[in-house]
Parts: sequence; C-alpha cells; structure tokens
Amino acid sequence: MNKPETTNNEFNVVGTTPIRPDGLDKVTGRAVFADDFHLPNMLHGKILRSPHAHARIKSIDASAAAALPGVRAVVTGADFPVIEHKLINQGAAGMINIGELADNCMAKGKVFYDGHALAAVAADNPHVAEEAVKLIKVDYELLPPVMDVRSAMAEDAPVIHENLQPGAFIVPAEKFLPNAGRTQFGNGDTEQGFAEADLILEREYTAETIHQGYIESHVTTVNWDSNDYVTVWTATQGQFGLRDHLADVIQVPIGNINVIPLEIGGGFGGKERIYIDPVAAMLSKKTGCPVKVAMRRDEVFRATGPSSGTYIKLKFGVKKDGALVAADLHLAYEAGAYAGGPIFLGILSSTSRYNIPHIRINGFDVIVNKPTMRPYRAPGAPQALFAVEQMIDELATELDMDPIDFRMKNLAKTGDRLVPGFPLAPIDTVNLMETVKAHPHYNAPLDGLNRGRGLAYSLWFNLGETSSARIQVNLDGSVTLTTASPDLSGTRISLAMQAAEALGIAVEQVSPAVCDTQSIGFAIPSVGSRTTYGTGAVVCEVAEEILGQMRARAALLWEIDTGQVAVERGIFSNTADPEQTLSFNQLAGRMFETGGPISYHKTGNPQSFIPGIAAHLVDIEVDPDTGKVDILRYTIFQDVGKAVHPDYVEGQMQGAAVQGIGMALNEEYFYDDEGHLKNASLLDYRLPTTLDIPMIETVILESPNPAHPFGVRGCGEISIAPPPAAIANAIYDAVGVRINSMPMAPHKVCAAINAKKIAAAAAA
Amino acid sequence: MNKPETTNNEFNVVGTTPIRPDGLDKVTGRAVFADDFHLPNMLHGKILRSPHAHARIKSIDASAAAALPGVRAVVTGADFPVIEHKLINQGAAGMINIGELADNCMAKGKVFYDGHALAAVAADNPHVAEEAVKLIKVDYELLPPVMDVRSAMAEDAPVIHENLQPGAFIVPAEKFLPNAGRTQFGNGDTEQGFAEADLILEREYTAETIHQGYIESHVTTVNWDSNDYVTVWTATQGQFGLRDHLADVIQVPIGNINVIPLEIGGGFGGKERIYIDPVAAMLSKKTGCPVKVAMRRDEVFRATGPSSGTYIKLKFGVKKDGALVAADLHLAYEAGAYAGGPIFLGILSSTSRYNIPHIRINGFDVIVNKPTMRPYRAPGAPQALFAVEQMIDELATELDMDPIDFRMKNLAKTGDRLVPGFPLAPIDTVNLMETVKAHPHYNAPLDGLNRGRGLAYSLWFNLGETSSARIQVNLDGSVTLTTASPDLSGTRISLAMQAAEALGIAVEQVSPAVCDTQSIGFAIPSVGSRTTYGTGAVVCEVAEEILGQMRARAALLWEIDTGQVAVERGIFSNTADPEQTLSFNQLAGRMFETGGPISYHKTGNPQSFIPGIAAHLVDIEVDPDTGKVDILRYTIFQDVGKAVHPDYVEGQMQGAAVQGIGMALNEEYFYDDEGHLKNASLLDYRLPTTLDIPMIETVILESPNPAHPFGVRGCGEISIAPPPAAIANAIYDAVGVRINSMPMAPHKVCAAINAKKIAAAAAA
Repeated sequence: MNKPETTNNEFNVVGTTPIRPDGLDKVTGRAVFADDFHLPNMLHGKILRSPHAHARIKSIDASAAAALPGVRAVVTGADFPVIEHKLINQGAAGMINIGELADNCMAKGKVFYDGHALAAVAADNPHVAEEAVKLIKVDYELLPPVMDVRSAMAEDAPVIHENLQPGAFIVPAEKFLPNAGRTQFGNGDTEQGFAEADLILEREYTAETIHQGYIESHVTTVNWDSNDYVTVWTATQGQFGLRDHLADVIQVPIGNINVIPLEIGGGFGGKERIYIDPVAAMLSKKTGCPVKVAMRRDEVFRATGPSSGTYIKLKFGVKKDGALVAADLHLAYEAGAYAGGPIFLGILSSTSRYNIPHIRINGFDVIVNKPTMRPYRAPGAPQALFAVEQMIDELATELDMDPIDFRMKNLAKTGDRLVPGFPLAPIDTVNLMETVKAHPHYNAPLDGLNRGRGLAYSLWFNLGETSSARIQVNLDGSVTLTTASPDLSGTRISLAMQAAEALGIAVEQVSPAVCDTQSIGFAIPSVGSRTTYGTGAVVCEVAEEILGQMRARAALLWEIDTGQVAVERGIFSNTADPEQTLSFNQLAGRMFETGGPISYHKTGNPQSFIPGIAAHLVDIEVDPDTGKVDILRYTIFQDVGKAVHPDYVEGQMQGAAVQGIGMALNEEYFYDDEGHLKNASLLDYRLPTTLDIPMIETVILESPNPAHPFGVRGCGEISIAPPPAAIANAIYDAVGVRINSMPMAPHKVCAAINAKKIAAAAAA
Repeated sequence: MNKPETTNNEFNVVGTTPIRPDGLDKVTGRAVFADDFHLPNMLHGKILRSPHAHARIKSIDASAAAALPGVRAVVTGADFPVIEHKLINQGAAGMINIGELADNCMAKGKVFYDGHALAAVAADNPHVAEEAVKLIKVDYELLPPVMDVRSAMAEDAPVIHENLQPGAFIVPAEKFLPNAGRTQFGNGDTEQGFAEADLILEREYTAETIHQGYIESHVTTVNWDSNDYVTVWTATQGQFGLRDHLADVIQVPIGNINVIPLEIGGGFGGKERIYIDPVAAMLSKKTGCPVKVAMRRDEVFRATGPSSGTYIKLKFGVKKDGALVAADLHLAYEAGAYAGGPIFLGILSSTSRYNIPHIRINGFDVIVNKPTMRPYRAPGAPQALFAVEQMIDELATELDMDPIDFRMKNLAKTGDRLVPGFPLAPIDTVNLMETVKAHPHYNAPLDGLNRGRGLAYSLWFNLGETSSARIQVNLDGSVTLTTASPDLSGTRISLAMQAAEALGIAVEQVSPAVCDTQSIGFAIPSVGSRTTYGTGAVVCEVAEEILGQMRARAALLWEIDTGQVAVERGIFSNTADPEQTLSFNQLAGRMFETGGPISYHKTGNPQSFIPGIAAHLVDIEVDPDTGKVDILRYTIFQDVGKAVHPDYVEGQMQGAAVQGIGMALNEEYFYDDEGHLKNASLLDYRLPTTLDIPMIETVILESPNPAHPFGVRGCGEISIAPPPAAIANAIYDAVGVRINSMPMAPHKVCAAINAKKIAAAAAA
C-alpha cells in the first residue's frame, strides 16, 4: 500500500493499523455466523419456489408434504396476513410498498420470477423438509415472461402488475407505460445546448443482471413465542430495517420483535432486505418451535436481490475546446419483479462529477420477471459509469485531448451545483486529477501489442442518516462501545479507534460491539459507506459528552468548577494547579465516589450526501484470438477524507475494484427464453478469483470532510464503479474497439475485433 | 386478595393486572433458561469439590483425569490468576475482597468448606466430565473445622484465615478476635437507660444456616474467544456485577466481557455472586471452545451462598408504661468461609422500627467453615426479628399490654432518627398498626386447645441505587422498553406498566426487555426490592423525556413552540387551538418527518433506604405429642406505597411469607462434627410445600413513597422477616413455651413442652 499522501501527527490512534477484535475468531472459525446458531427444539424450514418466471397459481396441494413423517407444518401465501399494496414513507429507507415486500417473501396468487417462494415446510431436520417440499403439487397457469427492460417498456408489453405503483429509491417516480416508473432531473435547455455543440455523439449501452456474490448464504432462525414476541437471529446489514419490515409483513407490533445480528459473511447491499425471515416466523408461529431457514446457493441467486441489468442511451454535446455543453441521458434499470430498483442512484452517479450546463436525465425503474433488484455497492453506478465514462473517453479521443485534461475542463468542484439541485460539499477533485496525472503509472510507457490503458473517474455520495452509539466507562478504565451498525468490513475497530482518539486513550482499552434492536437506539443499515463516517461521527459526539461527564467528576474531586478542568490525550488537569492531574483510568476507578457509572447514549443524524471521489487507471492486454482480457496493472486513486485504518481502507478500495472487474469481464445472469435462470451456482456464475486479478495498487488521498471531526469520508462503495468503464477504455486503447455491452466477455470482444477487421477489409 | 385499602382513579394502568409478557412461555416450557442454552462445539465442565470442611491441599494429581478419552482440559487453582487479597470499593456492591472472591470460586492451597471447588474438567459431554473428576487424586492435610459462631469467636478458636480483613455489607468492620469482624452502632447511654428501666429481660436466640432454595440450579456457558473477549450466558440477578467480578477473577478488561442474562428460575439474593463462571471461563480459554458448567443440587447446597446461622443475645429495658428505654444487642452472624455476611442488614433491621433512647448494637461477621454466606431476601432480618419480636412480645406479656398497643407506644414514625443515624423517610406506620388492630383476623376468637395467635412487625429498607432504562418509540406507536434489571418476579410487566402510565398509552403497546451488559448502561442487581421501585423511577424519568421529545415533534408539525404543546393520556394538543390534536401513535408514525427516531436512555440513581413495613398475624395449632406446628390462618398487612400490579404484589407478599415459614419451622443445614453437610438435597432439606401452608390473606396498604412519581415502594423482601417471630409468639400463646432456636422443628417444640410439664410437675 501507498501510505496516505497527506500524513500528519495530529492523531494518536486514527491512521494506525491495530488488529481488529473480531479477526482471530473469524479466521479460526470460532465466530458465530447465522448458520452456526442453534436453539433447543429448533425445526428446519425449506421453501418451495416457482420454476416459472410468470404464472398464476391455480392451486396448491400440500397434503402429501404435510403427511410426511417429521413434517411439522406447511405454510403458503394463504397463511400470511394480507397486506395492502401502498407506498409508505420509511424515512431513510425511502418509499416502501409493504404489500409487495410481503408478496416477494411469499407469493399470493401469482409468481413473478423463477425462484419466487410460494410454500414452505418446517420439519425435524432439513432433509425431511427438502423431501416434503418436493411433494407439494402446484397447478400453474403460465403467463408470458418479460425478461429485459426494452421489451418491458414496449407499448404492447404484457402487463406484469395490474396496478403498478412505481416506487423509487428516495425519490418518488411517476408511472410510465405499463411496466415502468420514471424519474426526471435536468438543468438548462438541452435543445439550446446541443445547438451550441461542435461535436455530438449518441451511443447505447447495455448491462446484464449481476449478483453481489456474498459468500455466506442467507440464514435465519426465528422464534415466535406464546405472547407474540418474535426473536430473530440472523446476518443482516440492518437489524432495525429488518425488524420494521418483518413487523409489517407478519403484522405484530414493532416493539415485540427483537433482531439479534450475528456475524455476517458479506452483504454488499444485498442483506438489507427480508426474504426468509417472515417464512421462518410463520412456521415458528404454526409449530410453536424456533425455526431455522437456510438458503441454498441456487436460492440466493434465484430469489434474493441482484443488481439491475440496464439499457442506457446517451447523447452528449461538446465544444471544440473540450467544454461539455449538453447531455441527454435515458437510463432504464431493471426493478425486477417489484418496483424500487436503484434508478435514482444511477441518475445521481451518472454525471454529477461534471458541470454540464444543459442536461436532461430520464431514469426508468422497469418491472421484469426477475428477482426484485436490491442495492449492490454503489447501486446503479457501475452501469451508469460504464456508459458515461466511455462517452467521455470517446469525446476526448475525438477532440484529441488528454483524458485527464478533458475531465479537468469539465470537473465539478466544491460548491458547484449538481443535477439533483444541491451543491457539491467540500472535496478536492482537482488534487485527485493532478495526482493521477503526476503518478508513475500514468506516465509509464506501455509497450507491446494489444495492450492498452484506460481511465475512469467516479464521484459518489456517502450516507450519514441515523446512527446510534453508546459509550460506557468501566471501573477499570476499559470502555464498552456499542453501536447499532453491523460490522461488514472492520467497522468495530474503525469505530473503536475513533472512540479512543476522541477519548484520548489506547484503542486496546475500547471494546466495540454491535447490538440487537432492543439494546440500542435506531440506526439505518450499514449501507451507503456510512458506518465509519456516520456512526463514527456519532461515536465522537458521545465521546465528547463522556469527557464532559468525566471533567465534572474531576471537578468534584478537586472541588473546583468543571470549566477549570482541562483534558488532553486522556489526562485531566486542574488549569489552576497544573500539578493536579488524573489519568482517564484513575478517574474511572473513582466513579463510585463521584456519582456512579459513566455512560452516554445518542441517536444522531450526521449529514448525508458526503462526496467521495476515485479515479481508476488500468493497463490490460487483449488476446485477439479469444477476446480474453488480462489485467496487467491496476491503480486506484481515492480520496477518503481521512483513512481511519489505512489497511482496511485499502481493503475496501481493492475489494470494490475486484467486484467491479468481475462485472466488467465475467459476471451475468443467464436466462433462457422462458425466464429460467440457467447459471444459479458459483461454478456457472463466474466471480473473479485471485488468478484473474493482479495486486491492486492504492493511492489514498485525504481532503478532509468538514462534517466529521477527523475529516473521515465513507470509502466502501465508490471503487466498484470505475472498473467497467476503465477496462472498456483500455480495450479501446489496446485494440480500437468499443464494447458497449457488459460484461465484456471474451466472445463479445472477439466479435468486435472481427467486425472491425471485416470493416477494415471492406474499406480497403 | 383484598384489594389495596387506598384506591383512587388517578391511574390508568398502574393498579391493574395485565398478563405478563414472559408468562406463557414460562408455563409452557418455551422460555430459555440457562440450562436450555447450547452452542456449537460446546464442552461440558464439572467441578471437583472438597469433601473436607478445612484442609490444606498438599498435592493434586489430575493425570488420570486428563488421560480419560473425551477430556479436553483440567484446571486447578494453579491455572487461575493470583489475585491480591484486599478490600476494594465497588460502590453499591460495598467493600469486596477480590482475592477471596477468586479463592471461593477455585481454592488455592487450602479448602475452607465442604464443597469448596479445587479442580475442574472440561469434556465432550457431562458424563465423561463427571467420571474424570472422580479420577483426580488430592492429598489433603486435615485442619480442625470451626462450625458455629460461638466456637469461632472463642479466644482459643483455630484461626481460619491468617490475615483476616473483615469486610461488611456496605459498612466496613474492624477486626475482632481471630475469626470475626465487628460493626457497632449506638445512641444514648445504655447504662443510664437500664438504670431507668422498670423491667429488664435478657434472652439468647440461635438460628441455623439456611438456603434460598431457588428451584433452578446455577448454570453458565462461557466463551473465551481468540481475542480475549469473554461472553457469558447465564441466569443472574445482576449481569453487571457478574461482569465486573468475573473481570477481577480472570483478569481481563471489563469492556471485553459481555454477560447475557437468560431467564432466571429463582434467586432470592443467591444469584448475585459468581461461582462457576470463572471456572467455565478458564476451561474455555484452555480448550478454545465454549464451556457449559451446570451445578447439581448437592453442589448448590454445598457451595453457593446460603444465609447465616446466628447467635443473638438481647438485653432490653422497659418502663412500666410500656416505653422502651434501653437495649443492648449482640448479633453474631455467620460469614461462612470468607468475610462479608449480612450483619449490617441484621443490625439495621433489628430495632429500627422502634424508638429506643439508649441502645447499643454490636454486630459480628464471623468466619466459619461453611460456604460463604450471601444475601437471602431481606438478608439478616428474619434471624434478627426472630429474636427482637419475641423479646417485644415477652415484654408486652410481662407488662400485660396488648402487643399492638405496646408497639404503638414505641413506634418509629416518619422523621424519627434511626440507629444508623438517618431519619425514617415518610411512611404511615400508625395506619398499619391501626389496620391490624381493626382487622377481623385480629379480633376473631381462636377456640380450641393448643391454639395460639402471634404477631410480628417488620420495617425494612428498599434500595434505589443505580438503574438504567431506555425507551424507544417505534414507527407504529409501539414502544420498546429496555432495562438492565433481570426479571425475577414479574418486573418486565411492572416496568412496562409504569412506562405506559407515564406515556399515557396502553400497556400492550410497551414491549419490555432485559439487556446484556454491552447493551445498556450500568445497573446494580435486582436485589433489595429495588426493581419495580428504583428501576421504575428511572423508567418514569425516561418516559418524561420521551414525552418532551414528542411535544417538540408536535410543535414542529404545528409550527408552534414546544411550550404550547400539551400532552395528557397519550393525546398531544395545541394549547392555542384545542382542535389540533395528535395521538401518541399518530405522532410516532410521523417521526421520519420530524427528525427521525425517538429514543432516550438514562442511568439514574433513585434514593435508597426507602422504608417498607409489614405486620404478620398467624394462628397456629401445636400437636403436643409430636411438637408439629400447623398454620391455621395467616394474614399479611403490608404497606407497598402503590401496588403497580396488585396480583404480583400479593404474590411477593405470599411467597416471602412462605419462605419465612419454611425457615421458621423446617429448614436448616445439618453438619456433622467434621463439618460434612449431611442434607444437601431437596429431599432432606425440607422446603415447605402447598400441604404445609394455607391460603395466605393479604392486606395491601398504600402510603405513597415521595421518592417515586406513583408512590411505589419495594415490596419483595419484607414479608420474609416476620414469620419466624410471629409463629414463635403464636406457639407461646398456644402452649406457653418460648422456642428460642430456629427452626422451631417438632423435636424442639416437643422438648420445650415436656420441659415445661416437668417444671410444672416439680413445682406442684
């Protein structure tokens, strides 16, 4: 790793790399993940899923399943409460259609995708449950499936939902054609803009449906007790969201539900929604026993929340000097079976990093007969960047400009007004560009045939929203730090480090933990790169309050006013008599003389839409015979505000880039014409492996975020967005073809090379 | 049940009798107690215990045990950290000698009682562990055991601890003779007082060691992870005390320990101290697996914390008009193997209910070779009352005064200065006495031979101390109420009721829960009748803050000042426009429009030493041939301040009385001369059953406690104290003999009757 460019000595703990407290147990197998959890008398649930993409359920006969020895209960949609289909405001979770949420967990009347749950069995063991599921007979009336956004948006497309209520992430949408909702943003007058342009390009781009590819499957254990209290043990990115949604679906008061988050084996946005929890809950209610439901890998692919396949059409106009003047974007994103895909974030990420005076963006959230799409790390951004950053590269090429100079010409800077209407919060975009341009990788010669270099640039917004934290000082000076934010990426240690920094003590004194929903105030899930930044900001506020309480304790012991007590790096001193000092531990040890325990809890709302920026530079080599792309060198430049734990920041940058490379080159859902998913396994869904990826270099930049006391920005998502575009630009640099369809699998690259050869031959 | 005498309409929820949320699962067997808890790869620990009351451990050979297939680890005292023996101040937990606490869990060098732990084994299952324990060979050098307080306090007694550091509950003691610590209190000049007296009586009383008799044994599961984080799942009265003590004994930072309290099957004071948790922890550390240790019943009797056997000598002086003028009390209470028995509470409960101008109390905490004594429901009070309330009865009889009139003459009232130096907080002692005197039971004729009626009166102090509570308002108007106070007696519902009352909503909207030590601020254990009163007071403070937050939300919606928003019984209104109202649920539903989640957490310190009073009236019949005492009628008069849930208040009164009756008539530890406990089973240790006890009548009085917003007092302990004295007084009334030794087993009553007959015959 390259150490952060900006180093300073103002911090004691922040910027160091201590061992995470959850690490050893995770690598030795002792950590308790959801599948490791057992209860006495626990039953096992298995789910029957539709083999059809679109069908009416005429009848379900579960009698043979129910009669199988060892089976304790069978449930179908008829056992679940009927929930009205309407949008409700769930704050940061956006507009939610609870009826659809419920139907997605257990179909009622119709199935909308291959894998849609329609019945479930609880039995003494998972094998009997699996056998019983096979005995359930379903009579289907097949309906025509709609498998991509363009056919779904055709005027004569089959209507998937009779009464579509378009939802959208954060921003409500209007209904547009039978299967789509539309969200629009714009500035200026695009007609005028294009009239002013010296060069106009129009291009189309597509991307296939992809999956987050977390290694841990979904597993939940639910106990519905005699008093209608429901306890859930599971891996989730957000125990509170799960709780509230589960309450909606199974119709018990929110206060009766406790969700206990266990360790999580990857989420990337895909574990913030309920699927199997209501099923386990209803089976538990019916049997009077706790019920565990564990998804197989094929169920994860078929029936959780992948990321949208897209169709994007761009029209960009530019002046000869490189100034962008007009853009018209048509972004159609799959919503899957129910409305609410990542279209708003696709819109937001598409062009916010550039100043374009005349711009119109039409975003479409499109119903298709696939699983309901859910966020995947910088949701919607890789698809949007794949289009826009190729367009930018093509424009620069046409104008014969250096791609960095072209971007600098149009670069959005602090305070510039972005498309959705708000100004860009402070961040040093210029320094990022200059750093790339001055970097040895940018200036290294790239020799050899079929080799090329590509660049892509991304600006992404990290969430603040609601977080809760509590600090408790113990008699021995140790500190218990609890938050409501599940640890996906080392946030126990990054939050403990911030607490230690703010309190002026060693990080080893701070024991971080993640709490269940009964045990701490509300928080939105660990999403949007918000935990280290947003929860961290709340942790710092709590630490300040704790220091205030402790200053008052010292004042009591010294019989002076609290205002006379100073504290610096864990030493409390009497400003009137500097000889009089107490260490943090000494003062903690006297808590019972000075008013008892010291603790503070806060639910805070740090600012959202904090920008993060990254540029990716990649060298590749194309095998012209097979179309296979090999990555030779890869450098990530990312501004993280302040790297709390630089090792884990680097890990976030590299991990995100690897996922972006996967979607750039290999990953996609294969559906046949009837809408059957044909590659629902990790053998056939091609995740990148260590053999596919070189060591990824990282350059950490630190322009401080004024909304955080240590300047921290979120850093988890942004680096997933540039790889497809950077690699596409590198392919063009290497072999002179533009691949406008993601993934850029060998057969597509090969076909493009051959088409170019044929065209060249024809022209010759 | 007699409904509370003072009824009023000021409350909506308090005073009603809703179903407790934990009830159904407990009666149907679904609730998770400590023995129901399992983890993957969990091992089972068993403990080798000394068969000798006092011995030096010369050597331990565990090689055969370690070699037994299935055994994973053996630990002895040598595996535990060496902890210095010194008193440290742990606030409300008093002065604790951590070295002794550690040695009590695992002997080092010497064993001090039959049952003292000295080695332990972890194995794949409990049967192998049990077999392995038997294979451990120990070479002992026997030392003379000291088995009662009088022989322990003899000048030439064997010295049990070379360097005795006397501790005492709350008040430090001075060292007194080799095996005792002394605590002294007094007022006036007893010599002068006795000189003024018209009548002086001197009496001696003894009581045997007894056990709390909780039905659930001690069970713990501990996981010591790779990073020295330690998690404990167990039943405890105080998860925080357990955490802090465990940290002391196993020497890890407090912040690294999380104690998760499971359901508890009885505690009565006996489950606030650690025994097996450090053993399970060290076995877990050594094996790298979670380890469960479950005590057998005989281990519970031999090696937990019973209540003191006592020797009490009284000298009381009274004027002819019934005014007490002088008292000299010598109270010697067993401490067991290590210092720290209930002597201070014995002192406090002995005479605080009466005004005695000249009084001296010497209390002794006496080391004997028995298990270390721990609190048992109103610790020390039944033994003290057995002596003092018999003395009072004898004095009244001698003066030919009605026992209530005699007590009224000397009754401590609100504001009177008590022996330890503080004034009696507000309580209506006069009304209690008048209520007894006017009650049909007191005035009913009692016909028949060998029948008698007895009265005893008790005043007890309930704790406030530190409690934590959090209220979280959910989007659907349901309320999550979490506290740090384990629910021993229905306190989930009694706290939920107080939250509902304070918030102005239905109790069904409030979901109460008990949290682990990571999940909420500090609290001292559920002891001292403090939970419904003290934690309840904190819950009410939190509810007030929540209403304040919600008033601010309503003000935001109505665009007025918060001061203009009124709230009454769950309806928020605009004082300027009374038509403008929002219900609690409506306002909760709009939380995301008005600033996000609504929650508040507080660690508070409600006032301690809140008095509670009770008088017990009992009719009995003595079988003159066998000495067996049958209870014919039993009425409890108790002032509970305000009965939050009258059914459970009645249950507390009756349950406490039944335990008092058990110790009055049956219960005792039988030791042989070598100090071996001979009745360590529930067959031989005679707890009362339903066949022994009639339906107990209850009269609930309510003189409000000004330290609680609804006037609540603790009610759990006091009624265990009067039964032995009331029954002793009734025996005297029935057959004219005074039984000064507890339990008043048939053979003692029989012997006394025979002695009286012989004396009468000799006199005739």
